[in-house]
Amino acid sequence: MARKISYIFLCMNVIPLLAAAASQACSAQSDAKCSQTGEWNGEFFPGIPKIKYEGPYTKNKFAYKWYNAEEVILGKKMKDWLRFSVAFWHTFRGTGVDPFGAPTKFWPWEDGTNSIAMAKRRMRANFEFINKLGVDRWCFHDRDIAPEGKTLQETNSNLDEVVKLAKALQGNNIRPLWGTAQLFMHPRYMHGAATSSELGVYVYAAAQVKKAMEVTHYLGGENYVFWGGREGYQTLLNTDMEFELDHLAKFLEAAAAYKRKIGFTGTLLIEPKPQEPTKHQYDWDAATTTNFLRKYGLIGDFKLNIECNHATLSGDSCHHDVETARINGLLGNIDANSGDAQTGWDTDQFLTDTREATMIMLSVIKNVCD
Amino acid sequence: MARKISYIFLCMNVIPLLAAAASQACSAQSDAKCSQTGEWNGEFFPGIPKIKYEGPYTKNKFAYKWYNAEEVILGKKMKDWLRFSVAFWHTFRGTGVDPFGAPTKFWPWEDGTNSIAMAKRRMRANFEFINKLGVDRWCFHDRDIAPEGKTLQETNSNLDEVVKLAKALQGNNIRPLWGTAQLFMHPRYMHGAATSSELGVYVYAAAQVKKAMEVTHYLGGENYVFWGGREGYQTLLNTDMEFELDHLAKFLEAAAAYKRKIGFTGTLLIEPKPQEPTKHQYDWDAATTTNFLRKYGLIGDFKLNIECNHATLSGDSCHHDVETARINGLLGNIDANSGDAQTGWDTDQFLTDTREATMIMLSVIKNVCD
Amino acid sequence: MARKISYIFLCMNVIPLLAAAASQACSAQSDAKCSQTGEWNGEFFPGIPKIKYEGPYTKNKFAYKWYNAEEVILGKKMKDWLRFSVAFWHTFRGTGVDPFGAPTKFWPWEDGTNSIAMAKRRMRANFEFINKLGVDRWCFHDRDIAPEGKTLQETNSNLDEVVKLAKALQGNNIRPLWGTAQLFMHPRYMHGAATSSELGVYVYAAAQVKKAMEVTHYLGGENYVFWGGREGYQTLLNTDMEFELDHLAKFLEAAAAYKRKIGFTGTLLIEPKPQEPTKHQYDWDAATTTNFLRKYGLIGDFKLNIECNHATLSGDSCHHDVETARINGLLGNIDANSGDAQTGWDTDQFLTDTREATMIMLSVIKNVCD
Amino acid sequence: MARKISYIFLCMNVIPLLAAAASQACSAQSDAKCSQTGEWNGEFFPGIPKIKYEGPYTKNKFAYKWYNAEEVILGKKMKDWLRFSVAFWHTFRGTGVDPFGAPTKFWPWEDGTNSIAMAKRRMRANFEFINKLGVDRWCFHDRDIAPEGKTLQETNSNLDEVVKLAKALQGNNIRPLWGTAQLFMHPRYMHGAATSSELGVYVYAAAQVKKAMEVTHYLGGENYVFWGGREGYQTLLNTDMEFELDHLAKFLEAAAAYKRKIGFTGTLLIEPKPQEPTKHQYDWDAATTTNFLRKYGLIGDFKLNIECNHATLSGDSCHHDVETARINGLLGNIDANSGDAQTGWDTDQFLTDTREATMIMLSVIKNVCD
Repeated sequence: MARKISYIFLCMNVIPLLAAAASQACSAQSDAKCSQTGEWNGEFFPGIPKIKYEGPYTKNKFAYKWYNAEEVILGKKMKDWLRFSVAFWHTFRGTGVDPFGAPTKFWPWEDGTNSIAMAKRRMRANFEFINKLGVDRWCFHDRDIAPEGKTLQETNSNLDEVVKLAKALQGNNIRPLWGTAQLFMHPRYMHGAATSSELGVYVYAAAQVKKAMEVTHYLGGENYVFWGGREGYQTLLNTDMEFELDHLAKFLEAAAAYKRKIGFTGTLLIEPKPQEPTKHQYDWDAATTTNFLRKYGLIGDFKLNIECNHATLSGDSCHHDVETARINGLLGNIDANSGDAQTGWDTDQFLTDTREATMIMLSVIKNVCD
Repeated sequence: MARKISYIFLCMNVIPLLAAAASQACSAQSDAKCSQTGEWNGEFFPGIPKIKYEGPYTKNKFAYKWYNAEEVILGKKMKDWLRFSVAFWHTFRGTGVDPFGAPTKFWPWEDGTNSIAMAKRRMRANFEFINKLGVDRWCFHDRDIAPEGKTLQETNSNLDEVVKLAKALQGNNIRPLWGTAQLFMHPRYMHGAATSSELGVYVYAAAQVKKAMEVTHYLGGENYVFWGGREGYQTLLNTDMEFELDHLAKFLEAAAAYKRKIGFTGTLLIEPKPQEPTKHQYDWDAATTTNFLRKYGLIGDFKLNIECNHATLSGDSCHHDVETARINGLLGNIDANSGDAQTGWDTDQFLTDTREATMIMLSVIKNVCD
Repeated sequence: MARKISYIFLCMNVIPLLAAAASQACSAQSDAKCSQTGEWNGEFFPGIPKIKYEGPYTKNKFAYKWYNAEEVILGKKMKDWLRFSVAFWHTFRGTGVDPFGAPTKFWPWEDGTNSIAMAKRRMRANFEFINKLGVDRWCFHDRDIAPEGKTLQETNSNLDEVVKLAKALQGNNIRPLWGTAQLFMHPRYMHGAATSSELGVYVYAAAQVKKAMEVTHYLGGENYVFWGGREGYQTLLNTDMEFELDHLAKFLEAAAAYKRKIGFTGTLLIEPKPQEPTKHQYDWDAATTTNFLRKYGLIGDFKLNIECNHATLSGDSCHHDVETARINGLLGNIDANSGDAQTGWDTDQFLTDTREATMIMLSVIKNVCD
Repeated sequence: MARKISYIFLCMNVIPLLAAAASQACSAQSDAKCSQTGEWNGEFFPGIPKIKYEGPYTKNKFAYKWYNAEEVILGKKMKDWLRFSVAFWHTFRGTGVDPFGAPTKFWPWEDGTNSIAMAKRRMRANFEFINKLGVDRWCFHDRDIAPEGKTLQETNSNLDEVVKLAKALQGNNIRPLWGTAQLFMHPRYMHGAATSSELGVYVYAAAQVKKAMEVTHYLGGENYVFWGGREGYQTLLNTDMEFELDHLAKFLEAAAAYKRKIGFTGTLLIEPKPQEPTKHQYDWDAATTTNFLRKYGLIGDFKLNIECNHATLSGDSCHHDVETARINGLLGNIDANSGDAQTGWDTDQFLTDTREATMIMLSVIKNVCD
């Protein structure tokens, strides 16, 4: 019997929480705390204890007031209802840059390079962070955890090296909520990946997804995500939407076939977003993406990863998109963030509105219990 | 072979054009120009000649400057590319009322009643108008052309009487682009028609659609339209979206079956709109509606009627929604109107933006020629 | 010394609360409960007791859980912080009509007429309602409480008759939070009142404001409000914005002069709204309106009435507009309602978002205490 | 006599036009075309002739079809109505980067450094470009034309060196439409410049404006612009809006005083934008900014620079904001760009909508002729 499972994924960007963290600098020039092999001597977050539940009246800043992982609610532990997952890029790769400003966030262990040593050091910080928070899921893009090399072979080799370390650091209890391939940063993807007008780009993207899926599988990932940030258009005047969607479908069909081939049993997820960076992204919202999956016969192979801020940017409430996914049998995962009601772009804030959160949780409970 | 056909429907609200029309009043009390039988002695638009094409340099206000009905473009007459249709309600039932204001538009032949005599008088005005414009399509809601009676039987009888007159006035050349049932004005539809939580309302709506389809068929209509203005919700807290969509699908399935039963060969069209009057209408946009049709196996029975202002309210460009319909094989008709880019509600203006109009026409040409 | 005072005005539309109210009908034909003089025999809301504070754990549906009028907070009674006011039109004149639907709300005492007798009956319902709620403020438009006559003289006489009754029903404790003139419903105001292109309309509007201010003064009103719903434009192509704003300023200047002349000591308030019914209303938001007041030297005579849903429609948060009014020394009153973040028009919902309410209350406290 | 003057500023980003430009690369390693002194041997845009007017029927891609600089319209030359100005940063510093993607635009003369030699090479490209286009205005931010040094002194010295070259390259006919200080990129400005909570940042910003105004004066600039991209807030919870606006006013007051002191006769312009990068920028739109200028008595010292895309993001049409500036006597300059009606962020596209452009030009004509 196929049990319906849903996950709540909260991007755990705890910068404010960690203001007390050590501020020792580890520049490329420095050899103080950073060895040649990328080791960091001592803790990344010294003085921060493992965060525990102490109830709503605790005065301890480093404690959960409401999240009691082992507490059973409606027959499930809270940690099974709320599968918190640390987002690697938000937590460790975000620099505070915006279209009008330079980076403003600096971690003491960053040395300004994109080297493998640096990548491994960051991965250690990631797992110290996860362990101190007491959560057991994380998620990542391929390019965020390991540097791009001069060739695909070199890039894959870099990825393998970092992933091997991550595997060791995961231990028995931690695993990826999902992995994904970053198909939007590199200039080659400026006109899309699976919808690029360049054959070479399409093929490169396919190879990248193949590898990202392999490492997600290797790490025991529960899902593999597709966010088609550049699969869309700036204007229909130079875009054959039908042709591009046909290509996208072929691409996803191949990905699903490869998943079966390698025995990866995780769920393939598509994450809708209406626009940004494109003027119009093909995976506009839950209904649009569901129509795409139905048209191309992909409905059995994919589910949806609903991100709240993406939903509100499309003109829907987050609850609406979660419900749309649910009643189409496609609710796979939720990125339970929040936007700003007066802002026309993705702000990726924490979901602190208890009303919206309650509505979404209603859908999650229905999805599990119905 | 199923030929793909598309129609351009422009709401021909020519109030400004007709400022010179006679202003003789015909109140319920008056017996001057209005006989007991609803006759109106003389023309409704005296002094207005039949509008003809005279080219871009004419000084004649009552002439087409660009629309030359018989001119052949890409192998088709202009009147076959642009199937102008007079919208009965916009042209003859609009009163200028808005949520903050009382009616401001008054036709001299209106007597303040909603009687059958009045309905017939209006229908004569409609056909004088159509003939003077030189177009050969019109479209209507059932309740706009004939008054509601005390029972459904009486209402249907009223409709029959007015439709009989319309049939006679149509002559050989004029026919409806489409007919539809008005399922949103009456208080019974306050929570929807096919998605109402009241069985009696659902049944009543079905009976109304049955009759409206019959008269559309009788009048030789080319399409039958469904606009689900109240098929949606104000809040998901008291709404079972899946349940309501199941009901809507059954409703449409029955409508398609009835179409076949009576031998009506016109196209069934669904007109998407994201919201207004509801906070969220189920037929949000072209992609959402297409997903609905696919899910419930209705894709062969329905096409879409894209209204530009509805598309822009959903966050898409009109061109995008027309293209989405086209590449899903569902472009049935276009309500080529326009909204206001700074306004969050439907303004139903004429499409006077030549850029947007050109983009839409590109899709129409592709739809016919590909 | 000019004390800074702020009021919270919550539209008390308690329809759901009153579902148990008697359903005896009082049609124009009926003579059962409605005398010729407009009397209604018995209570309007039978079975509904006076609503009292019983604390958060009460099971009594007809009780306040949080609002404890006499409780002192920061040195003021709760009823002085939150000056709840019953909005006559929302509570007693709303019919549930929308641009796509007929009325759906019917009070048993309504007889379908707009007679003086009916107006007086409604006024009695209003005061029973106010007394049962235990609040001591109400607010009104002139045309909502008394019917328009055939001449201005007759209209004013109607208003006097109803206002006299209201004065008696107010007793010693109840008074208007504000009164206003309805300058948008009648067709004469289709192109504005103080910004109309017709001199006669401008003059008529002035006469209407004069009378409305007099009756507000007579009833002991604390404020007089201007909401310029039609003071704006549909397109700048036929509008001389500077000219119209000059006229509006003269109009308001005259209103302020008349206020002084009659010794009315209440505050004159302008209520910003960005659009609807116009495409662009001159009093767009707090900053725009403040600029207008500064330009025309009206800053000492007027303050602002911030309506939250109007603020959000203008692209600001409600808190922002309240703060903008406050730091310009113009925070006069707050219509603490709420909109829908996904809806592009005014929905006038209750403010049930505790986060937004808390932010607004912060400004109110600063306004009083700073 | 104070003549009202308006300028049309069109960002001349002619990348597509210049696709045929030479693609020789000049990397930091290369010594081919780039001398040690930053010289570039030969043309930057070889094969591109001086662009001339040839009328609407020309087949020449490198010709103006409509812009005939010397043609007199309503008593003024077209070049005096439309004071085209090349925006240095859009044209020469844009890299195609977006929040989700790496740079995609590469000029052959760029060597990957931010050296003074590189800055001078770019300046030469700028003037070749301006001369080939046949326009006579350009505009710049201080930090776009010269690199930041380790100290303010070094930075100013860098600026002086580049500006000296620019002065020479300007010749007799070319001058800046405006200069400005970039007060948003550097991390020090993360919480604002003139509204920063750090005194040191406020002072640094003042020093930067002082220098930028001096070089604008030195180059013969006609205007000096303030765009307060970070003068606003992310949340009012940690922001004292009144306090910050007081600081901003003092800052601008000092700037105006310094202008008089150095004898700079250009106009000081404030460029409104509603948000981005902040959630709420203080100079929201024309009316908001005008209110600010009135409140702080700055109305005689500043005018407005209306950017169309900024206006539409604020909920106004561009025409509305231009008119608002005009009727307040504050129309100083127009950045006649365009946004995307379906996009919630600044896209800075060329204004190709002839309808909107016509409306704006109407205001410009009124501003000059009234």
